[in-house]
Amino acid sequence: MSNRMWGGRFTEGPDAIMEEINASIDYDRKLYAQDIAGSLAHAAMLEKAGVLTAADVEAITSGLAQVKNEIETGRFTFSRALEDIHMNVEARLKEIIGEPAGRLHTARSRNDQVATDFKLWVRDTTDQLIVQIGGLMKALLARAGEHADTVMPGFTHLQSAQPVTFGHHMMAYVEMFERDRSRLVDARRRLNECPLGAAALAGTSFPIDREMTAAALGFDRPTANSLDSVSDRDFALEVMAAAAIAAVHLSRLAEEIVIWSSAQFRFVRLSDRFSTGSSIMPQKRNPDAAELVRAKSGRIIGDLNGLLIVMKGLPLAYSKDMQEDKEQTFDCLQSFSLVIAAMTGMIADMTVNEAAMRAAAGSGFSTATDLADWLVRAGGVPFRDAHHITGRIVAIAADRGIELADVPLADMQAVDRRITDAVFEVLTVDDSVRSRTSYGGTAPGNVRAMVARWQARLSGT
Amino acid sequence: MSNRMWGGRFTEGPDAIMEEINASIDYDRKLYAQDIAGSLAHAAMLEKAGVLTAADVEAITSGLAQVKNEIETGRFTFSRALEDIHMNVEARLKEIIGEPAGRLHTARSRNDQVATDFKLWVRDTTDQLIVQIGGLMKALLARAGEHADTVMPGFTHLQSAQPVTFGHHMMAYVEMFERDRSRLVDARRRLNECPLGAAALAGTSFPIDREMTAAALGFDRPTANSLDSVSDRDFALEVMAAAAIAAVHLSRLAEEIVIWSSAQFRFVRLSDRFSTGSSIMPQKRNPDAAELVRAKSGRIIGDLNGLLIVMKGLPLAYSKDMQEDKEQTFDCLQSFSLVIAAMTGMIADMTVNEAAMRAAAGSGFSTATDLADWLVRAGGVPFRDAHHITGRIVAIAADRGIELADVPLADMQAVDRRITDAVFEVLTVDDSVRSRTSYGGTAPGNVRAMVARWQARLSGT
Amino acid sequence: MSNRMWGGRFTEGPDAIMEEINASIDYDRKLYAQDIAGSLAHAAMLEKAGVLTAADVEAITSGLAQVKNEIETGRFTFSRALEDIHMNVEARLKEIIGEPAGRLHTARSRNDQVATDFKLWVRDTTDQLIVQIGGLMKALLARAGEHADTVMPGFTHLQSAQPVTFGHHMMAYVEMFERDRSRLVDARRRLNECPLGAAALAGTSFPIDREMTAAALGFDRPTANSLDSVSDRDFALEVMAAAAIAAVHLSRLAEEIVIWSSAQFRFVRLSDRFSTGSSIMPQKRNPDAAELVRAKSGRIIGDLNGLLIVMKGLPLAYSKDMQEDKEQTFDCLQSFSLVIAAMTGMIADMTVNEAAMRAAAGSGFSTATDLADWLVRAGGVPFRDAHHITGRIVAIAADRGIELADVPLADMQAVDRRITDAVFEVLTVDDSVRSRTSYGGTAPGNVRAMVARWQARLSGT
Amino acid sequence: MSNRMWGGRFTEGPDAIMEEINASIDYDRKLYAQDIAGSLAHAAMLEKAGVLTAADVEAITSGLAQVKNEIETGRFTFSRALEDIHMNVEARLKEIIGEPAGRLHTARSRNDQVATDFKLWVRDTTDQLIVQIGGLMKALLARAGEHADTVMPGFTHLQSAQPVTFGHHMMAYVEMFERDRSRLVDARRRLNECPLGAAALAGTSFPIDREMTAAALGFDRPTANSLDSVSDRDFALEVMAAAAIAAVHLSRLAEEIVIWSSAQFRFVRLSDRFSTGSSIMPQKRNPDAAELVRAKSGRIIGDLNGLLIVMKGLPLAYSKDMQEDKEQTFDCLQSFSLVIAAMTGMIADMTVNEAAMRAAAGSGFSTATDLADWLVRAGGVPFRDAHHITGRIVAIAADRGIELADVPLADMQAVDRRITDAVFEVLTVDDSVRSRTSYGGTAPGNVRAMVARWQARLSGT
Repeated sequence: MSNRMWGGRFTEGPDAIMEEINASIDYDRKLYAQDIAGSLAHAAMLEKAGVLTAADVEAITSGLAQVKNEIETGRFTFSRALEDIHMNVEARLKEIIGEPAGRLHTARSRNDQVATDFKLWVRDTTDQLIVQIGGLMKALLARAGEHADTVMPGFTHLQSAQPVTFGHHMMAYVEMFERDRSRLVDARRRLNECPLGAAALAGTSFPIDREMTAAALGFDRPTANSLDSVSDRDFALEVMAAAAIAAVHLSRLAEEIVIWSSAQFRFVRLSDRFSTGSSIMPQKRNPDAAELVRAKSGRIIGDLNGLLIVMKGLPLAYSKDMQEDKEQTFDCLQSFSLVIAAMTGMIADMTVNEAAMRAAAGSGFSTATDLADWLVRAGGVPFRDAHHITGRIVAIAADRGIELADVPLADMQAVDRRITDAVFEVLTVDDSVRSRTSYGGTAPGNVRAMVARWQARLSGT
Repeated sequence: MSNRMWGGRFTEGPDAIMEEINASIDYDRKLYAQDIAGSLAHAAMLEKAGVLTAADVEAITSGLAQVKNEIETGRFTFSRALEDIHMNVEARLKEIIGEPAGRLHTARSRNDQVATDFKLWVRDTTDQLIVQIGGLMKALLARAGEHADTVMPGFTHLQSAQPVTFGHHMMAYVEMFERDRSRLVDARRRLNECPLGAAALAGTSFPIDREMTAAALGFDRPTANSLDSVSDRDFALEVMAAAAIAAVHLSRLAEEIVIWSSAQFRFVRLSDRFSTGSSIMPQKRNPDAAELVRAKSGRIIGDLNGLLIVMKGLPLAYSKDMQEDKEQTFDCLQSFSLVIAAMTGMIADMTVNEAAMRAAAGSGFSTATDLADWLVRAGGVPFRDAHHITGRIVAIAADRGIELADVPLADMQAVDRRITDAVFEVLTVDDSVRSRTSYGGTAPGNVRAMVARWQARLSGT
Repeated sequence: MSNRMWGGRFTEGPDAIMEEINASIDYDRKLYAQDIAGSLAHAAMLEKAGVLTAADVEAITSGLAQVKNEIETGRFTFSRALEDIHMNVEARLKEIIGEPAGRLHTARSRNDQVATDFKLWVRDTTDQLIVQIGGLMKALLARAGEHADTVMPGFTHLQSAQPVTFGHHMMAYVEMFERDRSRLVDARRRLNECPLGAAALAGTSFPIDREMTAAALGFDRPTANSLDSVSDRDFALEVMAAAAIAAVHLSRLAEEIVIWSSAQFRFVRLSDRFSTGSSIMPQKRNPDAAELVRAKSGRIIGDLNGLLIVMKGLPLAYSKDMQEDKEQTFDCLQSFSLVIAAMTGMIADMTVNEAAMRAAAGSGFSTATDLADWLVRAGGVPFRDAHHITGRIVAIAADRGIELADVPLADMQAVDRRITDAVFEVLTVDDSVRSRTSYGGTAPGNVRAMVARWQARLSGT
Repeated sequence: MSNRMWGGRFTEGPDAIMEEINASIDYDRKLYAQDIAGSLAHAAMLEKAGVLTAADVEAITSGLAQVKNEIETGRFTFSRALEDIHMNVEARLKEIIGEPAGRLHTARSRNDQVATDFKLWVRDTTDQLIVQIGGLMKALLARAGEHADTVMPGFTHLQSAQPVTFGHHMMAYVEMFERDRSRLVDARRRLNECPLGAAALAGTSFPIDREMTAAALGFDRPTANSLDSVSDRDFALEVMAAAAIAAVHLSRLAEEIVIWSSAQFRFVRLSDRFSTGSSIMPQKRNPDAAELVRAKSGRIIGDLNGLLIVMKGLPLAYSKDMQEDKEQTFDCLQSFSLVIAAMTGMIADMTVNEAAMRAAAGSGFSTATDLADWLVRAGGVPFRDAHHITGRIVAIAADRGIELADVPLADMQAVDRRITDAVFEVLTVDDSVRSRTSYGGTAPGNVRAMVARWQARLSGT
């Protein structure tokens, strides 16, 4: 869409308005390579089916190569009057090769053509996104490996709850992004059916071979219903939904980076490349990239929502409403690509302040649970009672302004005489994280094993 | 945002990624005029306040005039390295006038500057939208005046319920769009406070006169709290929310045009200018413009939703997340402008098929309510009983495949003997609509009076 | 949430407000069975791990059985002061069995407990939805089988474009709902990892066996990261996203039913059970169920959007924000279940008006494409030229008010002399649909084959 | 909606499904008082118009009083078979008073009745919300008054930028909530037109007096178009949009409270009443109420979005889709009421840690801008140069680990010899905030004046 506002008194003229609302060439030109690939596959199939001659197909093939070259070298003149990429390419082809261009459209329609082109773009973009997420996971794995022993507070409600390791924290995001990647893989598999040959909406009476065009374009098979083929935009919606869920994950990590970068936390420092400074406060480092990653989740969710609304209540088969699919999908998936790239860069570059993390992890009686668990394990105290006893000891420490490990044994025994000096083996943050050896727990050994497992899984990607 | 996908292996380099995510000049250049107007107002005020000399301000004024001219004649080189429109303008000003450019930024900050520029854009765009909606209302009024007597079916559940007039139907949309216009007027009034002078977030120690800059930029007053001034994006959200509600109205009218244009309804025919044909079916007229208007409601709602999400949970005052406000607002309001223009054109151009409307209005026993009301009025029958009696007469007509007015009096009296031949005065669709004289009802006289009232109200706009 | 508005002057008292906003028992009581199942699995595992005695576990098992029975027979008193279902069950268990109840919570936390309970509900609900969609597909298949030969207009832009069969149209929805079902199957597989044992967020030092509890609850494996386990709500989001896409499909079919039910189309008639009548117009049949199916897509999309927003920007691990997950997920998936059920009923019950469909299919020169394709095939005319010739013949027919098959051969030959009387073999709607034999095309033979294929696929479900 | 999932094999029976999807009595019973008020106004008007007798109206009046009493004392049996509140009330009225009940529905329809009832609920709820927001503003004013001098860091990007006062920060929210309140006031004014008398959709032939019923129900005037009257749901959408924007404001303050409550910030401490503790860490105070306020913005935005989608593309006049308006509106506005109440309580109750705020405000060279401004003002240095000089001095301080005020004058003069010891008058945080006296700036005098102004404005509410 151009950057115009439209006059209130209709002085613009209806033709300009119609061109503005109707022409899609300003954005669907992005599909030129897919459009040409689809035409090549279609022409080759028509030759095999006896619908086009070898000479026609030769002319079409070389003509389309020329068109592609003109576009890629910036010598192609796009025309709004020709509305979309399909007519722009076809009209230029006709200028170049004449009559055979008019035969190319046999047994297809703009409806199956646009569905094929757009689906190819979504599929190939999804492939790139899958690789990109793998790259982000590797960046996280690298930091997790470095920090399998780095103790930090594990937060609930942004309150320190129990110590964890920074490596474990990074690995939580590896799990999230693996689900995101896996959703894209599933969506990619589900969408990989070729609509070409559905024609306008009913199929065709020409003896076409849809298996052949599907294979030529890398699809697993042709679609099974012609009406569905031209009215379906699930493939965009599903990938956008996966992007939206992933963008929420990215927004969570971005929020953490913003908070961790504050003077009050100082857990991490972004590199100069992913932050901006201030001419007046050279020490200041604003986490701009993290904030923009957080923000773009709104845009990505907005795009998904927008396309769901566009598709709501549309009767079959093709309605022009569906032309609104492209800009929202492009914006969604390109924004998503950009935020993955920015997050990958931030994670790879950032400096971790181990001392600040450790100091924070050790305050706030974060090993109180360890004390309670010790009471259960060593003293046979029921869990709920152990909590109560621990609470009384924490209150003593809080009153005196000391940490749990500094409460004298005698004072602990005054609360509950089952406590022995073995308790001190569980009260430091290192003791605490080392003890969490249950599967999925934060113990450094667990984290290292998990990093190794993931590195092996990702090594081939 | 450029049309790129980003590599999975970080080969693009972090600097390219950061520039891509961080620089806003590709879209905020749209604010150049507002940025320059704000600087001129600020400079004039600083002179009056004794902060700048007359010579400085003269240099700034002529320098900014040159910058504006360069931009408007396409001779300005925008730089992504300078990030945004504010720095692009300032850097060029410095090249032109030297040191005084460095004084212009005294007592302001990019935070209040961007808030001011963007608010000016939203305000001026809102003014245009208000005028545009007025234009659409006038187009509707014109058609309503022509068709105050044109009978059509009034639908509930897309089933014919009672006859109405096409003029009355058009006037329903006049009411909706008046509320839309009124919401924009309210939003415009509420937002018209000037953030300039809030500086970074705390105000300034310079003796600035915020009333003066506010007045120079057409604001009613300065904003009252500096933190709020730089963190507020309500002005965009409120206008977008008004656009979303209006877009829903437009989608409803667009849906009706699509249905009315079907071969089964044939109530209206869009002009060639707002429909597209088919090379193969020259009689066919696809309501593309109406479908696109309907679809763009999704995009507009998606943009509103997206910006609400961006703003959710942001601590004060400025966060970089807020840079994501512009593209969504631009897209929302420009899409809205375009759909108003397209709808205005369609309404002004379309051909109304009175015969088809009348035929549809007269079928389906649409005057059954008139019969029931007659029974209440003339026969003193309780309303619910009158409904029951009418139902029995309708059943007779349905069985025989005739209309209500064709049921013989004797057969009616067999159902209820209070019926006299005066009943036939209410059974035609013309009788029906003429009788609906209650305030707001569909009687042609009502419609004409309402058209006149609205024409008078809109005549000054 | 209760149906209250809260006073402006805080007279309600803060305690009432906090209880209202904080307590979840009013809605999470729905999870009682999952909560008890999770506790039983946990207790059995703790016994095997040597943490609980056999006697404790026996007491817990019989006590929980009693609690479950009390809930299911309406004898359980839910307490808002106890906040949620977990504490309600535990508190009652303690009343029944005393101290062992206090041991049950060993090595778990409310964080992993609620994640497990909620995930179990989502998983089991997803299983039901998968079966329900299968039921809808079977209803569509039954109608498709009956109507493999029933000709109707194939629409683009709600304009008749080419004839198709009603069976083919029904089969388009079978394809859509199969994708929907497949998305749920993928989501179900992805989510089926057990969070129990993640404890508060860091895992535990108790020697628990997470494989055992996972297996007992029907999970494929335990989750791999304790932080992710308690902060993840992807499982709800992904199922909701699949529901939103499916709801859009349902809204499209619902829109068609509303349009098809209009007096102008009369393609279908809903049964009395899924429509509402009018006391005054007994012949009237409002498609209420279809309209409500269409509308509920808004609610379902709104719920998805709402939960995405809730999760945006939350730091790890657990934040109370996440308590807002349940009502939106319940509302989304229960609404989805209801609209599938309603659509299944409508499809199974509705009467198809074959005559009205056929009449509509035969008007509007819907076989023009067939004429053009014949020219290409039989006359060797390039596709674009064939379109042009056809357009001229259609114009003749339109001028005379006749159908294409009624244009005399001589008049056709006057347009292009390559036309022979063999052309009349392709101009009827039956000819047209029979000729569309390309894979996925509308030919009755194709439709029957596809119905058979799907019936075989679905027979085991 | 009940809490059911629906079987896949349609064993539930279509009648149960239709009742579930169609009946609204489970939630629209909330409108009983509005429904009865509307009927009383309608009956009184019908008597004046000569349509009903005084005896009828007397019977109706006392009968409705009895119905209302039965509902309010829990003795009314709601029936799903009667679908909605309107039919439930009318059926019971008929049982009580017999035939006159059948006359009450003269000259109205369920369409205008439900529009009137629902609009009354929205209007009256909006009135309560306006009062509630006033209450929240007063709570903020009280804290602002106490803390007009309390220095805290002013943040951008969650980095300390310049000192502000906590009172000024609170006042930023007063500005936001005033805009929210003002939006509700505008919406309330715009919606206050009475749809009663629009009848089914066309108006009526009875001599009704719509001014009279409008006045009786507190409306400013009757609506002007009968089709619009029954198809309009703008009144709900506009109030929900205002709620969504306000909820975003509340989410921002809630986010701040969560961050401020962290051990790293310790700027505020929530009261016990609005936080939850831990049995094991008695000193811990989780900001649950703040997190829930933040989260509910998602739900509120989701509801708005959902209803916009429901209304998209609906042809006039009434479609059953519109029945989906109520639950989303109720949920939205009741959630909004609850979060205002919770925030009001939190603000009123929370403890402000002035020392922690001051300490944070004084670190990070937050008065660097003051130094630069001093250079401009006292030294005549151009703004951009002053920034550069300041940056060099900050770098010195950062290297030495001291604050700006502790950099010796000689070292400053080594950077720029125009610096004199007068500079030290602007380098403390108190100096800084006191100097920001520009209108809207953070100077304590400004804050106190603004508090006084707002207290005066709100005193009458």
